[in-house]
Amino acid sequence: MSGDSFGRVFRVTTFGESHGPGLGGVVEGCPAGISLSEDIIQKELDRRKPGQGPTSTKRKESDRVKILSGVFDGRTTGTAIGLYIANEDQRSRDYSQIRDIYRPGHGDMTYDAKYGFRDYRGGGRSSGRETVSRVAAGAIAKVFLQSAGVDVLAYTIELGGIRADFRSRQEVFNNAFACPDPEIVPIWERLVKECKKDGDSLGGVVEVVAYNVPAGLGEPVFDKLDARLAYALMGVGAVKGVEIGRGFEAARLTGSRNNDALARQGFTSNNAGGILAGISTGQPLIARAAIKPIPSIAKTQKTITNKGLETEISIGGRHDISAIPRIVPVLEAMFMLVLADMYLLHRSRKDIFIQT
Amino acid sequence: MSGDSFGRVFRVTTFGESHGPGLGGVVEGCPAGISLSEDIIQKELDRRKPGQGPTSTKRKESDRVKILSGVFDGRTTGTAIGLYIANEDQRSRDYSQIRDIYRPGHGDMTYDAKYGFRDYRGGGRSSGRETVSRVAAGAIAKVFLQSAGVDVLAYTIELGGIRADFRSRQEVFNNAFACPDPEIVPIWERLVKECKKDGDSLGGVVEVVAYNVPAGLGEPVFDKLDARLAYALMGVGAVKGVEIGRGFEAARLTGSRNNDALARQGFTSNNAGGILAGISTGQPLIARAAIKPIPSIAKTQKTITNKGLETEISIGGRHDISAIPRIVPVLEAMFMLVLADMYLLHRSRKDIFIQT
Amino acid sequence: MSGDSFGRVFRVTTFGESHGPGLGGVVEGCPAGISLSEDIIQKELDRRKPGQGPTSTKRKESDRVKILSGVFDGRTTGTAIGLYIANEDQRSRDYSQIRDIYRPGHGDMTYDAKYGFRDYRGGGRSSGRETVSRVAAGAIAKVFLQSAGVDVLAYTIELGGIRADFRSRQEVFNNAFACPDPEIVPIWERLVKECKKDGDSLGGVVEVVAYNVPAGLGEPVFDKLDARLAYALMGVGAVKGVEIGRGFEAARLTGSRNNDALARQGFTSNNAGGILAGISTGQPLIARAAIKPIPSIAKTQKTITNKGLETEISIGGRHDISAIPRIVPVLEAMFMLVLADMYLLHRSRKDIFIQT
Amino acid sequence: MSGDSFGRVFRVTTFGESHGPGLGGVVEGCPAGISLSEDIIQKELDRRKPGQGPTSTKRKESDRVKILSGVFDGRTTGTAIGLYIANEDQRSRDYSQIRDIYRPGHGDMTYDAKYGFRDYRGGGRSSGRETVSRVAAGAIAKVFLQSAGVDVLAYTIELGGIRADFRSRQEVFNNAFACPDPEIVPIWERLVKECKKDGDSLGGVVEVVAYNVPAGLGEPVFDKLDARLAYALMGVGAVKGVEIGRGFEAARLTGSRNNDALARQGFTSNNAGGILAGISTGQPLIARAAIKPIPSIAKTQKTITNKGLETEISIGGRHDISAIPRIVPVLEAMFMLVLADMYLLHRSRKDIFIQT
Repeated sequence: MSGDSFGRVFRVTTFGESHGPGLGGVVEGCPAGISLSEDIIQKELDRRKPGQGPTSTKRKESDRVKILSGVFDGRTTGTAIGLYIANEDQRSRDYSQIRDIYRPGHGDMTYDAKYGFRDYRGGGRSSGRETVSRVAAGAIAKVFLQSAGVDVLAYTIELGGIRADFRSRQEVFNNAFACPDPEIVPIWERLVKECKKDGDSLGGVVEVVAYNVPAGLGEPVFDKLDARLAYALMGVGAVKGVEIGRGFEAARLTGSRNNDALARQGFTSNNAGGILAGISTGQPLIARAAIKPIPSIAKTQKTITNKGLETEISIGGRHDISAIPRIVPVLEAMFMLVLADMYLLHRSRKDIFIQT
Repeated sequence: MSGDSFGRVFRVTTFGESHGPGLGGVVEGCPAGISLSEDIIQKELDRRKPGQGPTSTKRKESDRVKILSGVFDGRTTGTAIGLYIANEDQRSRDYSQIRDIYRPGHGDMTYDAKYGFRDYRGGGRSSGRETVSRVAAGAIAKVFLQSAGVDVLAYTIELGGIRADFRSRQEVFNNAFACPDPEIVPIWERLVKECKKDGDSLGGVVEVVAYNVPAGLGEPVFDKLDARLAYALMGVGAVKGVEIGRGFEAARLTGSRNNDALARQGFTSNNAGGILAGISTGQPLIARAAIKPIPSIAKTQKTITNKGLETEISIGGRHDISAIPRIVPVLEAMFMLVLADMYLLHRSRKDIFIQT
Repeated sequence: MSGDSFGRVFRVTTFGESHGPGLGGVVEGCPAGISLSEDIIQKELDRRKPGQGPTSTKRKESDRVKILSGVFDGRTTGTAIGLYIANEDQRSRDYSQIRDIYRPGHGDMTYDAKYGFRDYRGGGRSSGRETVSRVAAGAIAKVFLQSAGVDVLAYTIELGGIRADFRSRQEVFNNAFACPDPEIVPIWERLVKECKKDGDSLGGVVEVVAYNVPAGLGEPVFDKLDARLAYALMGVGAVKGVEIGRGFEAARLTGSRNNDALARQGFTSNNAGGILAGISTGQPLIARAAIKPIPSIAKTQKTITNKGLETEISIGGRHDISAIPRIVPVLEAMFMLVLADMYLLHRSRKDIFIQT
Repeated sequence: MSGDSFGRVFRVTTFGESHGPGLGGVVEGCPAGISLSEDIIQKELDRRKPGQGPTSTKRKESDRVKILSGVFDGRTTGTAIGLYIANEDQRSRDYSQIRDIYRPGHGDMTYDAKYGFRDYRGGGRSSGRETVSRVAAGAIAKVFLQSAGVDVLAYTIELGGIRADFRSRQEVFNNAFACPDPEIVPIWERLVKECKKDGDSLGGVVEVVAYNVPAGLGEPVFDKLDARLAYALMGVGAVKGVEIGRGFEAARLTGSRNNDALARQGFTSNNAGGILAGISTGQPLIARAAIKPIPSIAKTQKTITNKGLETEISIGGRHDISAIPRIVPVLEAMFMLVLADMYLLHRSRKDIFIQT
């Protein structure tokens, strides 16, 4: 209950810091008999790797996952799956600057306030590097969900204020922004180039959609499916907002416009984003997450030291320009973890006494 | 783990449907020795009562809370607090229409999909009426937090697409919209009148702010303070989006604009909404929730029966035009519940080995 | 997480003190569609009622249960079931004696140590009266489990050191001790009479057996089925020991004697009590609980006041001579709650990928 | 919620099988600032190592623990602590025999029933080897508790039916049985020799005592301190019974004998084992666990194959004669984990409003 665990029936517990020996986690509740290998997980981890596009640092991390338990003869045994990713690229750096200075937009000040002490090397536990464990665990949820026909896709719908349209699923895998709109890609590329020149960073919006989610997932009252999704997505480092279906736009519609009518063949629209009263309708689930710009920038910023003295900081080095697109598979993984959990929880009581 | 509980150390578990005998809950983990009475809780419940403003139905519910346990000689004993609110206004109505028809925007279809069966009277467990238990529990969290100096305020910042400014705290209690901007009130009144005439409904945006929250609340990785807040707010019936600090706007800023600089006297801005790396900074916490328009409208809508036959529905009767302002104390209550929980969780380990 | 909840998928949360307005609880996770009524629950509560035998006080409590939610048209809806039992027999008594004096064997001293304050009327939350909520919740688990063929029986196997044999199931319901051995009943009756004369009290041992439990229930590592049962039974007020199968006797056997051999038709003995490696084997589950003598006795005892002054106390009034047999349905209820929970948890992942 | 986690505020989640790559876990909720190193944990692991006495196999496992996260500059950071112990002694063995045969007293049959599939190498997740993770996690709880003055000691009080007396604490560390009674040691040695000759195994009873536990730990109703201890101890592989204080003996005492009287200087006896109404009294906590004989024996046993065919099995190889004494530090570790958790949970709300 200290925040390193997520889920109830399908659950992950993670550990690890950016500059310690390594990161990993324990996945509990995965059904027995799924075909699982390090290669399957590795494929997802590779999507999150740095150094893959215009927004990304050149830092090389091979991020090789090891399965430590819970898989036998190529299949899950139903028991706890241990995962480990060693930290390899730990250059011996001089941390004296960030040891004493609170970087604006980072958790340096709050970790000191909370613990009275912190691992200052690269942000420690608050580093975005912890998401490697989420992606590894999400890969297991993905294998399980795919066997149930569920499919999750995340993509960048906005970068630095410039919006893309959803043109094609294939396109998402064709460019370095996970952008579904090929016409926007060159515009974003110029934007990133400018931003880099300025020593600044960019935010954006990522959309996550899940297809073939069966109706009935989610639990009344506090564990509505949308509540669990918001909980999962907002817990990812750079996320500052989450919306479902029409989201904030729905607040500006009248009821007659926002309600999704029903016809014989099903709903005739999906403003609700696939969730009514917190329970999945069977339509695609749709969520969006607002990603703040990366706080580590080369531009000089005013701040204070941990002694309260005023100073300035310019953060050079190997930093991404945007959490996008590396955050895309992370949000996808969180979606998977929520769905696997809600799926199993629902399954536990489904159709015992009443046939639907 | 079935969704009726929220919180870890300070926790509420609720029950109840809109047309059953009553609603209530159990509050666990409240420290011993707090002055508590039914009157204190009642004051909060009265803020949520229907029939109090232009957006609200005339339905009269006295909503009298009873404390069933956990309070002795006017103070909490530290043990479980039982709460009960009897349903009084249960007119014997004819439910045959909604028994068989799926109301658009409601959980009728999803509850059937999930349980194969549902209490069709007024929405059953999916009715907004369940929030009465949240407000009662939140009132207890509020008494506790106030003694620690924490103060939470929620207000309507947008209705039907028309935005208000935060002019004054006092104003929030002076009008029927919980609107902090007196100049907007007459505009919203006209909007509501028009909407009612159309047989339609309205959504809006509610902002929740918490003052004097100590730095250090929130737990890394999955239980970041913003993740818990999003989880709490998104679980309230009509909410379709949640954002923290600048929220979706932050996605359109560069890092140099979005980062909050630090000076000797503290942060010089609060784009982060009082949370960095998931942990409170000591600045005010700021969140906003997007409220969808109420789905029950008089206007005729296309839908189907539970047998899949196409039909139409026009929902008359005692329905609000908007969840605003009755949802305002509900969101406030959820904030309180998160903060009380995170406060106690943090307190459990605070300053054991290291002095801040 | 404050101790008033038990279970994961099938979960109960309780509240209430012996002299407050009433007691009750919330049952979550019960599957939809079970036939349930107040009468079904009442039947179990009546088994726990005082004033029913030689060991029991004459205090009259009608203990009428009310279902406050979660049941519609005589069937569970799958949502939270609210339960309430009003306290009726609240004589206005003079509590000044026990207000200031720590009764030996009671929680008076520890509640003061924990909370700095306590509801001294009849033990407050630490009163055995809280078990009424367990029995009510267990009744719901029972209905569910019976439909799955599972059957739980508890009975007294020892009283005041005098052992009974298991002669017949029917006998358990034929005497006031829930004793399966008719020859022992008159001996126990004399023992109780003597003890009453002495102003003293008695303990004993209760055995609980569950039949037709499917193989496969229980979760490795910490949530073994035996661990959950021990957790459940040891949490009942007077229980000081729990054993499974041969229990403490198994510690005195060699492996060749203790191991249960397997033959074509199944196990040829059941020393394990139906659990191997924490998972049910399909044989009957067998557990025993050691019940301490009731601490409230007429005999004069040395103790101190809450100011630390030495004094004496003789507890007269309406007290049972033994927690037996009233504790019997309580232990049965706890067994039911564990099994319902483990059953659903197992069901959530059962046979997804591999056919047994 | 799949059984691999234990605790609420101080919590451990484990993974690993006896013949996979390794075992380990994640410890959450440990306060920041504790001095912690691999050496400190290693010391506890070494107490559990095989090959150390007359009851133990000669199998050599160096069981070197690695701390993967959560410790910086020799102190805990307050964030998740990752632990790993690689499996080294994985001889390439022929498992064809146990692959198809259900070993009596083992989980082979139940794991197949539960998962439809199992890691048959050495018991997989059901192997006693999983306790290495418990001991590593318990070592962290121990460091924390020691700083609070709490001290836990476990020792063997009975082996093969022959009882020892508690003579001295020092003695516990002087012999290979963790026996506090030097006169019994040679008798047990002979017993073990005989048993080994017979190809059989032995059980026993281990007592665990915690000193300087502050009054007030434990939570009403289901999370009484004794309930949590029973839960923790019964979850350890070979344990078939748990008792607190006088335990099963208390069932044979009258109330006047069993109650612990109070005098100015405190309790005058400790039949309760330091717990009243589920909350610690400040006296030593006393629990005992019944340990069944190890099921793996050389003697020929009747059993069946996984196809249901009758057969015989004789389990040779490197097996212990008794889980004692290797289980002693495991039970100690579980005690520590319970106490650390209950300590922090209690601390979260202690003395907020009322001074004791």
